Amino acid sequence: MTRDPRFDILFTPVKLGPKTIRNRFYQVPHCNGAGTNYPGMNMAHRGVKAEGGWGAVNTEQCSIHPESDDTLRITARIWDQGDMRNLGAMVDHVHSHGALAGCELWYGGPHAPGLETRTISRGPSQYASEFGTVPGCPGFTYNHAADKDELHRLQQQYVDAALRARDTGFDLVNVYGAHAYGPMQWLNPFYNRRTDEYGGSFENRARFWVETLEKIRRAVDNDVALVTRCAVDTLYGGKGVELGEDGLRFIEMASPYLDLWDVNIGDIAEWGEDAGPSRFYPIAHENDWIRHIKQATNKPVVGVGRYYDPEKMLQVVSAGIVDIVGAARPSIADPWLPRKIDEGRVDDIRTCIGCNVCISRWEMGGVPFICTQNATAGEEYRRGWHPEKFEPAKSDNDILVVGAGPSGSECARVLMERGYTVHLVDKAEKIGGYVNDVATLPGLAEWSFHRDYRENQLQKLVKKNKSGQIALGQKAMTADDVLSYGASRVVIATGARWSSTGVNYKTHDPIPGADAGLPHVLTPEQVFEGKAVGKRVLIVNYDPYYMAPSLAEKFARAGHEVTVATTCALGAYMDYTLEGPNMQRLIHELGINVIGETGCSRIEPGRAELFNLFGDGYKRQYKGTGQLPRKENDSHSWHECDSVILVTGRVSQDGLYRELKARKDEWEKNGIIDVFVIGDAESPRLMADVTFDGHRLAREIEDEDPQHQTPFKREQRAWGTAYVPGQNPDLEWRL
Amino acid sequence: MTRDPRFDILFTPVKLGPKTIRNRFYQVPHCNGAGTNYPGMNMAHRGVKAEGGWGAVNTEQCSIHPESDDTLRITARIWDQGDMRNLGAMVDHVHSHGALAGCELWYGGPHAPGLETRTISRGPSQYASEFGTVPGCPGFTYNHAADKDELHRLQQQYVDAALRARDTGFDLVNVYGAHAYGPMQWLNPFYNRRTDEYGGSFENRARFWVETLEKIRRAVDNDVALVTRCAVDTLYGGKGVELGEDGLRFIEMASPYLDLWDVNIGDIAEWGEDAGPSRFYPIAHENDWIRHIKQATNKPVVGVGRYYDPEKMLQVVSAGIVDIVGAARPSIADPWLPRKIDEGRVDDIRTCIGCNVCISRWEMGGVPFICTQNATAGEEYRRGWHPEKFEPAKSDNDILVVGAGPSGSECARVLMERGYTVHLVDKAEKIGGYVNDVATLPGLAEWSFHRDYRENQLQKLVKKNKSGQIALGQKAMTADDVLSYGASRVVIATGARWSSTGVNYKTHDPIPGADAGLPHVLTPEQVFEGKAVGKRVLIVNYDPYYMAPSLAEKFARAGHEVTVATTCALGAYMDYTLEGPNMQRLIHELGINVIGETGCSRIEPGRAELFNLFGDGYKRQYKGTGQLPRKENDSHSWHECDSVILVTGRVSQDGLYRELKARKDEWEKNGIIDVFVIGDAESPRLMADVTFDGHRLAREIEDEDPQHQTPFKREQRAWGTAYVPGQNPDLEWRL
Repeated sequence: MTRDPRFDILFTPVKLGPKTIRNRFYQVPHCNGAGTNYPGMNMAHRGVKAEGGWGAVNTEQCSIHPESDDTLRITARIWDQGDMRNLGAMVDHVHSHGALAGCELWYGGPHAPGLETRTISRGPSQYASEFGTVPGCPGFTYNHAADKDELHRLQQQYVDAALRARDTGFDLVNVYGAHAYGPMQWLNPFYNRRTDEYGGSFENRARFWVETLEKIRRAVDNDVALVTRCAVDTLYGGKGVELGEDGLRFIEMASPYLDLWDVNIGDIAEWGEDAGPSRFYPIAHENDWIRHIKQATNKPVVGVGRYYDPEKMLQVVSAGIVDIVGAARPSIADPWLPRKIDEGRVDDIRTCIGCNVCISRWEMGGVPFICTQNATAGEEYRRGWHPEKFEPAKSDNDILVVGAGPSGSECARVLMERGYTVHLVDKAEKIGGYVNDVATLPGLAEWSFHRDYRENQLQKLVKKNKSGQIALGQKAMTADDVLSYGASRVVIATGARWSSTGVNYKTHDPIPGADAGLPHVLTPEQVFEGKAVGKRVLIVNYDPYYMAPSLAEKFARAGHEVTVATTCALGAYMDYTLEGPNMQRLIHELGINVIGETGCSRIEPGRAELFNLFGDGYKRQYKGTGQLPRKENDSHSWHECDSVILVTGRVSQDGLYRELKARKDEWEKNGIIDVFVIGDAESPRLMADVTFDGHRLAREIEDEDPQHQTPFKREQRAWGTAYVPGQNPDLEWRL
Repeated sequence: MTRDPRFDILFTPVKLGPKTIRNRFYQVPHCNGAGTNYPGMNMAHRGVKAEGGWGAVNTEQCSIHPESDDTLRITARIWDQGDMRNLGAMVDHVHSHGALAGCELWYGGPHAPGLETRTISRGPSQYASEFGTVPGCPGFTYNHAADKDELHRLQQQYVDAALRARDTGFDLVNVYGAHAYGPMQWLNPFYNRRTDEYGGSFENRARFWVETLEKIRRAVDNDVALVTRCAVDTLYGGKGVELGEDGLRFIEMASPYLDLWDVNIGDIAEWGEDAGPSRFYPIAHENDWIRHIKQATNKPVVGVGRYYDPEKMLQVVSAGIVDIVGAARPSIADPWLPRKIDEGRVDDIRTCIGCNVCISRWEMGGVPFICTQNATAGEEYRRGWHPEKFEPAKSDNDILVVGAGPSGSECARVLMERGYTVHLVDKAEKIGGYVNDVATLPGLAEWSFHRDYRENQLQKLVKKNKSGQIALGQKAMTADDVLSYGASRVVIATGARWSSTGVNYKTHDPIPGADAGLPHVLTPEQVFEGKAVGKRVLIVNYDPYYMAPSLAEKFARAGHEVTVATTCALGAYMDYTLEGPNMQRLIHELGINVIGETGCSRIEPGRAELFNLFGDGYKRQYKGTGQLPRKENDSHSWHECDSVILVTGRVSQDGLYRELKARKDEWEKNGIIDVFVIGDAESPRLMADVTFDGHRLAREIEDEDPQHQTPFKREQRAWGTAYVPGQNPDLEWRL
């Protein structure tokens, strides 16, 4: 197929000073958990985007000096020749596919905790970081107020890093001044309280940044295109940088030194205002600010706003709001997004759902990132997975997949891509499993993109392989049904449900009186099924993610009086997905009553008994067998309510799998080679992880032990030995 | 000097099946942030303990299989030959100093989040982990209930790992069943809800563990001593393992298969009940439970309880409570503890203060650990620092150190150890700086061990070098005093103070009406100085660590009505030091009123204006210059109180340093080569980090750029190249 000519403008090159980008698709810097620690992961993850048609591919934030150490979070570093070598692997791979490679020079100031190097970061004035440099601990990390020597030393650190980036082969050098990092701390009066020529007036506050750009330009000359990433509005009015004041003024002042502007909004403590979760922000949500930039500069401008939709990209470029479309999350969800537009396959794009689970991994620190939509993200090198290429089937086995939720539908899709004949069976009328319910929660409509992509691909694939089948609205399959079905391999993806009796991580027991069979007690599933809920709702929460806050919002908006009794911080995981601050604002605004550190010990019609988790006294002593070592918890009290919703724990629906496993001796005579369990039916986990699990099994279904993972390449150094990728199988683990 | 004969019993060997430990000092397994990722760090850190006289040195928890993946936390792994090679470096180093090397075989079950390998861990029944596998998120990670195949597969994973441990050269193989890990989940009815022969009765619940020990013994025969680490009481009564029931019964049943018992108490969600912070637990705090163990077994027993005191060690061994003294934290604070007893230098022991900052780094994940007392912990390999050996002075420079707090006193101590002539000057009558105040807070008395060690060492060192001097109770030094002092190098360690005007990380501004010059407003320092505090106390908190909760406790115990208005979770960092749960119990018990997510906008006599941080609405839109993008925060309300204590932010006291820096042109004629600033005076940070900073400068004071760190060895693999420690200087970073 060929490109719709309407999109031609997105494929016209743009001159960036000494360099030229081949089209208007620009992967802005984003973290992926590889840093320079996992050079293979970084190389392959960025490289597949170049192969997928992105015109420029950037590193994540890349520390210019050990003084700017983001540990516990993993970021790239360009401190020495070892780092240059590791980053060079990415540069070469990106170049081999005709894209430009960019390096984002990062200096953290107070936002760099220095937990590995034990260094102190410098800045214009001294303050504690408002960011959770250690999760949950704003105000933990302080910086040192640089004097003139230190200030010039810092500028030289930028210059030296820029030269290392050039020598590594990068085409673009990006001085990172967004997200309250580096030079933004000098421009922003919130951070800059100096009284010398680097503080006070706009010209003085801009001096550090502009001088730094000048010095870098002088050093690198025209060997690289010089970019700066700049937040044009920090979103807290005159105390920070405002678009109409310092924002546009700085764009105008610094333009002469630059070849490209990479602009966004916000700061670091609430960087979800830039990397906006779909719960709160639609595509292109920054444009009310970004649309003003081009009046202030004649240099090309790249802007972001979760651009997953080619029509929207076309619109912002045609309207001249930006010259180049920047994207991070959409490039993770679909590394081949530009190529699919180019090939006229727009409806094959795997669209970012804006859940920010990718970001949650960087935010918690030290973990490779994952993507809910793209199970191959981060797996390109270590498992050798390509997002768009699949190993052909190794046999003509027919495969039965029971359950078309996130895991089963992904498994079936990949099996069909490999050429297997697949029968996908589900009780529901629609593919997607619980996503069909969750997407009806306030703010989560775009999570349905996960279902839509698989539904669309599966329908296409069934057209290709007529012997495959998608059977929806079926009666629940029994073990007998499966055994007699005629499939040679069976995949059970029957998901999980919320406990209907209040079983939770604290007690592993039901809560007395918690019985979803009663009219006044509900599970989340029963809420979705429309079971009646009274005026006064109590949500009993033992879960750290979105379900309890989402249900609280749903019922508060519907006019109910909502109380949440929660053991852990409500929506704790949402601090990692950047949904936290606005969710807290929403809870406050809707008047939802949150009772923290609280468990539920009993439920009766009209009331529930709550208690403080820490009501058993801080003194501990041995009192002999049968005695608790603390005093009795005396904090129990009754809370009146009409309905209780149990968000206590999830339970794998694995009955069918366990019965089939128990009847293993009947497999052979029924022509069954193997039976697998995947996704939430094996163990409840994130949608991203059950999608991965279904994908994994489809890739490995004829490996040695498909129920368990096939070994992947570990990127690990070994004491006193050479590690050459692929050359040392001992360094790959074996199950 | 020679050993006090009273301690002889601690130096008698003990037979552990096929192996013999040379004395009664046993470094129990503990994490250090090295895992197998940093083999040099692990080798050198454990090795120096063997050199320091420990009879056995163990790894940290060492994962037996990728299914048990603790990422984001770093732990050791024995998955493949690469891991064996890395662990082998430690084994060889430990053996070279005559100690036994032990490997702790770890399988996490639901407490292993699998964030790197994306695997699912197995266990007896399915449940969500009550531990914060992701910080702040209990209930996040679920496991899979193993069927018979999976159960036997798991036992085989233990056997295979034990064989790899043996082949790596370990003398001790420890099956880790404490802290609610691995086989403990099968013994503990809280986790084990099975109805087959592996669940129900004690014999059934013990079966998995006993079978596993049998299988390992059969596989390794007598090549290694077999140990199991066992929590003999999980501290939640009959729902778990009780000492008088399953605890002693299991010791009796499993003894035949073992050569050593490594016993403790507690679980993982509150493992501070074992690794007890000094705030809540004294030395030997587990003995009410541990004293019963030897009735049930004739095998040697090692027990823990923060044994920093040789007298206490002697007592528990002489009394036959344990045969061998286990220690983790005391071995970190002083790796040479046994050797100092042996050499009759008991008063040179660097005593663990029980702050658990070491643990906080593992707990948050992905970070090398640190020690408040021992600045060389974790630095043995990468910086080449030895806790007891120092490079001789490179010159006869006299060095003036201004400030005898944690940083200055450590700097002076190390400089004197190197043979420099040092003058240590302070206004206070006593060495220790703010530690002298902090140690008066409830529960923190043992933090004064930090001061006591340095005070004692400095007095000894001054006796050795008569030209050195410790001048206390002096008037504050001016720049003129320093310039004319006659020192050739000057170290400024003047510390930090709490803001007296309410400057904080949220606004970087004073709080209107916050003026510690007024009678109703206090800083923490003024509290320590005895400034009067009224009946109703309001603590305005913007700090994530111990100061606010400690002051709240102090005044609540003294009968005041205490309210804490806090922006972040009160004492958030104390969740990482394991002080969190009991601090929450204490706050509840003392009736302290905590108002969360709350800032302070104004203080007046008798009242303070508080507001919810999230009261400004979740909707954001561009409204033009001078306009905030959200609605006005309408949550402000007045809180009545008699006194307000400001725990808002710390401020470096660097005036003297900055004046000296400004008068650099006067240095030479005064014979001054250089002036440095260290510790909180450079930037406020943890006591551990200012101690490190003072130590670092003393080691590097004649390096190229002593104010900034000398490069250390990075343990980092480089793409496609050999990394041979010491052979590839390109892989060390350069400032």
